[in-house]
Parts: sequence; C-alpha cells; structure tokens
Amino acid sequence: MRIVVVNNKRLASTVEMGQRLAQALVAMGIEVLIDSSSAVITALPFEAMIVLGGDGTMIRTARQYADRDVPVLGVNMGTVGFLSNIRAEELDQYLERFVQGDFGLEERMLQEVSLHQDGTLIGSLLSLNEVSIKSQGSRIITVAVKVDGHHHGLYRGDGVIIATPSGSTAYSLSCGGPIIDPALDAFALTPITSYQLNKRPLVIAAAKHIEIDPFDGEQYHIAVDGQVTRAISGDCSIHVRKADHRLRLAIMKPRHFFETIMERLQRDS
Amino acid sequence: MRIVVVNNKRLASTVEMGQRLAQALVAMGIEVLIDSSSAVITALPFEAMIVLGGDGTMIRTARQYADRDVPVLGVNMGTVGFLSNIRAEELDQYLERFVQGDFGLEERMLQEVSLHQDGTLIGSLLSLNEVSIKSQGSRIITVAVKVDGHHHGLYRGDGVIIATPSGSTAYSLSCGGPIIDPALDAFALTPITSYQLNKRPLVIAAAKHIEIDPFDGEQYHIAVDGQVTRAISGDCSIHVRKADHRLRLAIMKPRHFFETIMERLQRDS
Amino acid sequence: MRIVVVNNKRLASTVEMGQRLAQALVAMGIEVLIDSSSAVITALPFEAMIVLGGDGTMIRTARQYADRDVPVLGVNMGTVGFLSNIRAEELDQYLERFVQGDFGLEERMLQEVSLHQDGTLIGSLLSLNEVSIKSQGSRIITVAVKVDGHHHGLYRGDGVIIATPSGSTAYSLSCGGPIIDPALDAFALTPITSYQLNKRPLVIAAAKHIEIDPFDGEQYHIAVDGQVTRAISGDCSIHVRKADHRLRLAIMKPRHFFETIMERLQRDS
Amino acid sequence: MRIVVVNNKRLASTVEMGQRLAQALVAMGIEVLIDSSSAVITALPFEAMIVLGGDGTMIRTARQYADRDVPVLGVNMGTVGFLSNIRAEELDQYLERFVQGDFGLEERMLQEVSLHQDGTLIGSLLSLNEVSIKSQGSRIITVAVKVDGHHHGLYRGDGVIIATPSGSTAYSLSCGGPIIDPALDAFALTPITSYQLNKRPLVIAAAKHIEIDPFDGEQYHIAVDGQVTRAISGDCSIHVRKADHRLRLAIMKPRHFFETIMERLQRDS
Repeated sequence: MRIVVVNNKRLASTVEMGQRLAQALVAMGIEVLIDSSSAVITALPFEAMIVLGGDGTMIRTARQYADRDVPVLGVNMGTVGFLSNIRAEELDQYLERFVQGDFGLEERMLQEVSLHQDGTLIGSLLSLNEVSIKSQGSRIITVAVKVDGHHHGLYRGDGVIIATPSGSTAYSLSCGGPIIDPALDAFALTPITSYQLNKRPLVIAAAKHIEIDPFDGEQYHIAVDGQVTRAISGDCSIHVRKADHRLRLAIMKPRHFFETIMERLQRDS
Repeated sequence: MRIVVVNNKRLASTVEMGQRLAQALVAMGIEVLIDSSSAVITALPFEAMIVLGGDGTMIRTARQYADRDVPVLGVNMGTVGFLSNIRAEELDQYLERFVQGDFGLEERMLQEVSLHQDGTLIGSLLSLNEVSIKSQGSRIITVAVKVDGHHHGLYRGDGVIIATPSGSTAYSLSCGGPIIDPALDAFALTPITSYQLNKRPLVIAAAKHIEIDPFDGEQYHIAVDGQVTRAISGDCSIHVRKADHRLRLAIMKPRHFFETIMERLQRDS
Repeated sequence: MRIVVVNNKRLASTVEMGQRLAQALVAMGIEVLIDSSSAVITALPFEAMIVLGGDGTMIRTARQYADRDVPVLGVNMGTVGFLSNIRAEELDQYLERFVQGDFGLEERMLQEVSLHQDGTLIGSLLSLNEVSIKSQGSRIITVAVKVDGHHHGLYRGDGVIIATPSGSTAYSLSCGGPIIDPALDAFALTPITSYQLNKRPLVIAAAKHIEIDPFDGEQYHIAVDGQVTRAISGDCSIHVRKADHRLRLAIMKPRHFFETIMERLQRDS
Repeated sequence: MRIVVVNNKRLASTVEMGQRLAQALVAMGIEVLIDSSSAVITALPFEAMIVLGGDGTMIRTARQYADRDVPVLGVNMGTVGFLSNIRAEELDQYLERFVQGDFGLEERMLQEVSLHQDGTLIGSLLSLNEVSIKSQGSRIITVAVKVDGHHHGLYRGDGVIIATPSGSTAYSLSCGGPIIDPALDAFALTPITSYQLNKRPLVIAAAKHIEIDPFDGEQYHIAVDGQVTRAISGDCSIHVRKADHRLRLAIMKPRHFFETIMERLQRDS
C-alpha cells in the first residue's frame, strides 16, 4: 500500500508533522510519498492521501490529484478548515482506522475550468471552489454569460464568480452568494459587484455548462481557487463544466453540513 | 379522452375563454370538465389539463391536481406568467398538437408542507412556490431550523421562507434569495428579514427534510404559495419535504430558463 | 428640583431599582415622580429624567416626554442598550454628578409621524426609531412615496420603513438599511422586502418631508417604534418630518458611536 | 468676463461643440479658455465654466477646478449624466441666461483624499465621487478604519470605498451602499466585498474624518473617482475629510434628486 502525504513547505509545523506521520506509516508497512510543493510528485499509483494543513492545501491537492479518485483525509493544523475532518492531535487515534479503510466518504463536486483564446483551448484546470473573472484596476468590465449555449445576459461590474457548493462558503459568499449544500451538483453564478441593480446570484444545475465571454479589450484576470491567477487582455472565453472526478473526503467522524456551517463561518470571520 | 380546463371565475376573460375552449375540445370528441373555483371538481380520471390564467391559477392547479400526474398546459391570459408556455391567441394553433400528446414536458418540483400541533399532524399541502412562516404585526419572531433532524440554527426576525426552485423567483427573491434552476431538486431557506447580521440564504438538497419550530408564544402566520394562510399561536412545527409528485408542464415551444429569466423578472417588476 | 424616574412595571428589577433611586434622590432634597406605565403622569414641570430599563423603555420615554427638552439619563438594567450610558451598578457612582448637571449631552433626532385619513389629520406621534408601513398577511402592498411633495416612486413588497439615525441600527438594519451616524439629521427609507429588484435604501436629508401613500384597498398596519401599532384599510397617508424636539441623552462617560457600534450589534444578535 | 470651456479631447463631438461654443461666447464679448486635457490650463482668474461631456469630464473638472468656486454648467453630450443639467441641443437656448448669471446653484460636497506613506503626506486630491482602496489580484486585504481618530473596526475582503453623496450612486451603489441625498454632508463607508458576514454600509457625518490603514504587506491600489489610480505596497494610510470647496453646479432647469434618481439609474444600467 502506498499513501501520499501532502504538507505545506511554508508551514514548518506541517513539514515536521509530515515526517512524524511518514515514520508511523512506514512502521505500519506502508510506502509513503511526501508532496511539499505545488509540483505533482509522482506518476506511481497510490491508494490514499493525507493532507496536513488548512483548506488552501486541500484545494491544491484536489486540483492536482482528484483524477486519482483516492480517499483524502484532511488534518487540520490549526487554522479553520471546512474540508478537514480531524485535528492534528487526533491523527494518532484515527490513523489505523484510516489505513484499514474504515471510514465514510463525503464527495465534493469539482468543476473543470477551460480557457479558450481566439477559439483555441489553451488550458484547463480542476477547481474545488471557484473561478473568478475580475476586473484589474478600477474599471468595470462587461462579460456575456451563456448557459448551455444560450445567451443568458450581460454582467457589468467588477466581474463574476462561478463557484461550486464547496466554494459557496468562500469568495462567492463575500459577494452575496447563497450557501449551497455540498450534496447538490450545482454552480453559483455570483456577480462580484454589479453596476446593474437587478442582478442576483443564480444557482445552476451542474449538468449544464457555463461560458463567460468578456468583451474584447477588457483588462481582467482569471483566478482559480484564488491560487492560479492569469491576467488577460484579448479575445478569451472561459468555459466551466462539472468535472468527471470528485474530491473524496475520508470521514472518520460523521458531521452534518448545516449543523456546523454557521459556527464555522463565524469562527472564520 | 377527458381534459380538465381550469379558469379563474373572477376573471371574465378566462371564463369566456374556457367556454370557447370547451366547445372546441368537444368538437374534437373530447370530454371536458371545467374547474372554476378552488374546490376540486372531480374524482373522475382525466388525461390532461389546460390552465387559463396567470401563475396564481397554475399554482392552485398544482396544489390540487399534481397527484394526478397529467400534463398541464398553461395559457397566459395577459399577465406575466413564469409557468405558462403559450399565449391565449396561440391556443388555436397549438390545441391539436396538445390533444395528440405532441409536446415536451418540463417537470417542476413540488414540496409537501405539513403542520404539526402539539405533536399531531393537523394538515398537509402540496406547494409549488414556497411556505412562509411570518410574524404577525410588528414583533420579531424566533424560529429554530432543523435539517434532516439536526439542529441548524435560530432565525430571529420577520420569519423564514422555504421555497422550491419555482418559488425562488417569487417571494424568496424579494427577500434576497438566489434564483434557482428548476432543473435542481433543492430548497431555498431564506430569512424574510433578519435581526442577525450574519444570516444568508441557504440552498438545501431536496432529499433532506426541513423542520421549522417557532418558539412557543410567538404570533405568526403560515402561508402556502401566498394562497392558503393560517394564523398560529401555540406549539406548532412545520415540516417540509420534497413531494412525491411534480407539476408536469406541457411545453409546446421549447424555452430555456436562463435565456429568458431576467426579461421575465423585469417585465414583472 | 424635580426628576422623573421611568421604570418598566413588567420588570420587577426596574420597579425595585426605581424605589431605591427615589429614596436616594429624596435624601438629596429632590422631588421625584415615578412613571411606570405608558400614560404620561404629570403636567408638572421637571428638570431631568432617569430611565431604568432597556431601549424599549427609553423609546417610550422619548415619545412621551421629548417635548419637555430635559436631559435623560439611561440606566441599563441588563439587556443591551444602545441608548443607555451607564449600567445599574454604576448609578450610585454617577448620581450626584447627574443631579448637579455635570454631564455632556448627546442629542438624537426624533421624527414626527402623522396619519391622515381621507385628507384629515387623525393623529401624530413622536418617534425615536422608525415608522413601518407593512403588509398584513401574505399579500404584497404598493405604496407611493413623495419627497418634499415630489413623486419619488412606487414600492411594491412587504412595505417600507422610515427610520431615524437611532432607528438605523434596529428594524431598518434587518431589512438591509445602512447604519447612520446619529450626528446626521437624516431619514433612511428602507424597503422591508421588495418585489422590485432595483430598490435600494435611501438616505434623505431630514429637512425634507416624506409622504407615504398606500394604494387604496391595501391591508396594512403602521407601527411606530414597534410600540404603537394600528391596522389600516382605507384611504390613508403617512407624513414624516423631523420633529421640533430631540431626545437629549445625558452622557456621564464619553463614548464614540463608531468605536462601539459593531460590538453592540454583535452582542445583540 | 472670462469662461473656461472643458471638453474631452477623445470625443470629437465635444471638441467640435467646444469650438462652436467658444465662437458664440466670443461674439458675446466673453474671453474663452478651452481645456481639453487633464492638465490645468490656466492660472488666470475666470468667472464660470461650461463642461461638455459626461460625468467623467465633470468629475475631472471638479477635481481640478473646484477650488476656484465658480459656477459650472454641465452639458450632456449624449451619455447619461447625473451631473449635467442641460442637453447639447439646449445650450443655445440657455447660454445667454447662463452668461448673465441667471440660474440656481446646486452645491455638491467634495472630499479631500490624502495619502500618507511612512507618516509623511505624499499627496492630496479633491474627489467628487469616491476613493476606493482595493485588493490587487485575488487576495483579500485587511484594512483598519478609524473615525475621528477612534478605532472603528477591521474590514477583510476586496477593500472599502469612501463615497460622497454624489458618489453614492456610482461604485458604492454597486457594492450595496445606500443612495444618499446630495443635500447631506456625509460619507458612505461601503465594503467592496466583505469576508465578514456582519459588515454593513455606514453613513458618517462629513464633519468627522476617516482614516484607512491597510495592513502592512498588503498589495492594493487606491483609486480616486476611478480616474487617478495608484498601486501601493508598503506602509500607507489614507485620510478622508470633507473638502473646503464644493462643486457649484449651475441649474438652469430646476430638478429634484429623488424625483428622477430611479429613472436615471435604470437608464444607466
């Protein structure tokens, strides 16, 4: 059995914890690979992942490894984590059960964000939270939105966000979007700020696909999960679909989204 | 073949149109039953319905007949209708196709709203749009919300709304709720006005069930689709689930929800 | 010297405190009148007031006594008070300074709310917080709003609020209104919930006067400060102006509105 | 008599109109100076200004010339203008009255925005609409806000706006701020988007002064009226006060702010 341990090389505590954990796993006869950076480390197959850190590390893990379809255990190293299930000090207690596959799964929808320039696909990423198309500087931008190929409308303002249910408690919420049950396959389309008084957040079935076409000549940047950012100026369009893969969170301790969401949001703000 | 025609006895135009339509259907060899009021008219089986009027008439039809699972054609008699598919002057043109069953179907989720008093079920209704639990007069009320039996939180203010996707463009939208794709099976839980600054609209998978428990001693009323209203003072709880039946709208002319939603909302406001 | 002590006859603690306070004042050679109810007790002149209780009691005091133009000391008896300046346990410490007139003043704008029926003035009240014109039951109402006699627009929904700066942190805030500096003479015009997507809260200079004309046949009630409520059905109009008098709060301990407002709001929600 | 005519050198129609207007004024014995760019053209005294173009040109004029305290006539050249009073085709009709000083005045509050770096004042600008302190890229920023030297609170999100009443219908409105009567001397403090659920727009008396202190190390830019932008990274603070000067709009045709505001906003969105 092989397990990938992900830590955050900028957080000494997670690096140290990663080494302790690797020793414990090796002692259990498990092969361990450690991923400390944003470069995917291995083409080798593996059966499970343990992520040490906050939601940022989990979001990167989802983007890079979700196509492996293995269970991922999130271990909270101090900061608030919507995606982690146990705290660092609980890891010893739950490790054996995790290795034995004795846990539940909570699946999280991912979205696939593709960027087309002059009609050509130039890149595609998995996103756990959201993609934002956002004005640079102080000028408003105008973007046309299509849903399943049908023109929905123009949005004028600081830009728009397409968020997953996981992302509905992050940037989209700051912009007035609703909190969406992770059990739903849906997108939130949320204006960042809107010059038009009648715009409201939309919740769109994830079986549909969304296309964002900023007007030519606008200066904006695209950010995927706030981690991968690209400044754009030219003829681009952004396509968002539900991804074929999901983040498969290992659940050692059952939890109910709506039971804890308000406390977690408040602790975090 | 038997068709029920629903009109609105307070709108002469729909009554007259109902008579003309009945004659046309009879001439085609179809038996016609006319429902002009809010009392269900028949225990007889029938194969289809035609609803003459605005969304209010369609909402009543859904509440009273959705358990028959027959296709319903909405005919707009002048007012804006989110649920009608053709205008009155188009009825002649489409009637034969409708009678022959040559149309698409757009299904709309219904919710079942049950009222329990002192632990006993005292009534249950189908709802196409929303149930609101709302303060009477000028005092705020406090309601506890459970999702799938787990305590979610307390809401203090003028009350709360549980809306379907169909209802997300009605009262829930007035209160800041998101617009939800009718293709999703989901509830919007929207505070009417909130004394608590951190409350936000929630979108909850309709596989879950929601319970609203107003605090004892509060004075409030419950309104289902704004049509059936009941004043309450005492120990009550309101349960909301997805209904077993759906409204099955006959679609003569294909349409796309997100293509037309903003225009329909603007025309209406 | 004569001082009016206001308590809340439904709160034993304030009644008891009122008696203790009266004894202390009498021992200082001061004549005391106790007002425990909502009936104005005296035509006698007096020089100052002490209000024992929460904001509700202060609001009633403002409505009934603001035309006396005397300083009012608010004593918080446990609940959160935006308007009280000292806590019950501090009263002994500050009483002598208060009696000697050694304090600052913070003035709060009041509004005068007049109700006209069929063109005739049928009543007029002072209001410290807000007047709300609000639908009864589940139907939306339409009201026309004039500012200084000029038609401003129609509001369709659950109704509207006209709030003072003091009232901007109460019901108006629940409905999305802004928090307004009490140093400003201004009204907030806030829709309670709006059927029209483009309505936004307005802040109107209090030198202007506002007229609300509900459409004939609407069923609504008018609430002044949530304390005086009247159900209306018929031809009415509500006029709001800045009052000639202000609530003159005695300030023993200087405070800064924006320094404490967020904490006070959070404690309260 | 000397009049400054302001046009927009990028709009041929305003340049051409400027020349026609100059000829007409010269024929009336008036000396004319034309300002076509963003460089202040003259140290000479003058008695009045005519601004050809949209609100952008008027905003620049206010920033550059408000300290001259002369009346300014705004002439709308096609785009929607909140600040212009007559249309291009009406100029002939009103010119003589304007030259003779036969008009009303509507004064608009300006704010003075000062930027301090490492404790030193490095620049100060007049602003008619707003100053925004806004994150660059996709990271949230944290800013501390002081009102009259007292700590008010921390804002985490995309940043904050300090707007005048004139600016309350511009970017601040897009971010959920209230519409403020230009007759009031007030600031709106509006979060652009807020990571904290409990933040609400504030309306602050303009007699107070506001200080914004972004946390060290944040990357943000400051934009004054969307026209003057500066990227910042380092120890800065932004101070906002009411300016000593006002924009003095010449009013040939009386108008009432609340009578027309909703139509003007709708036309514009």
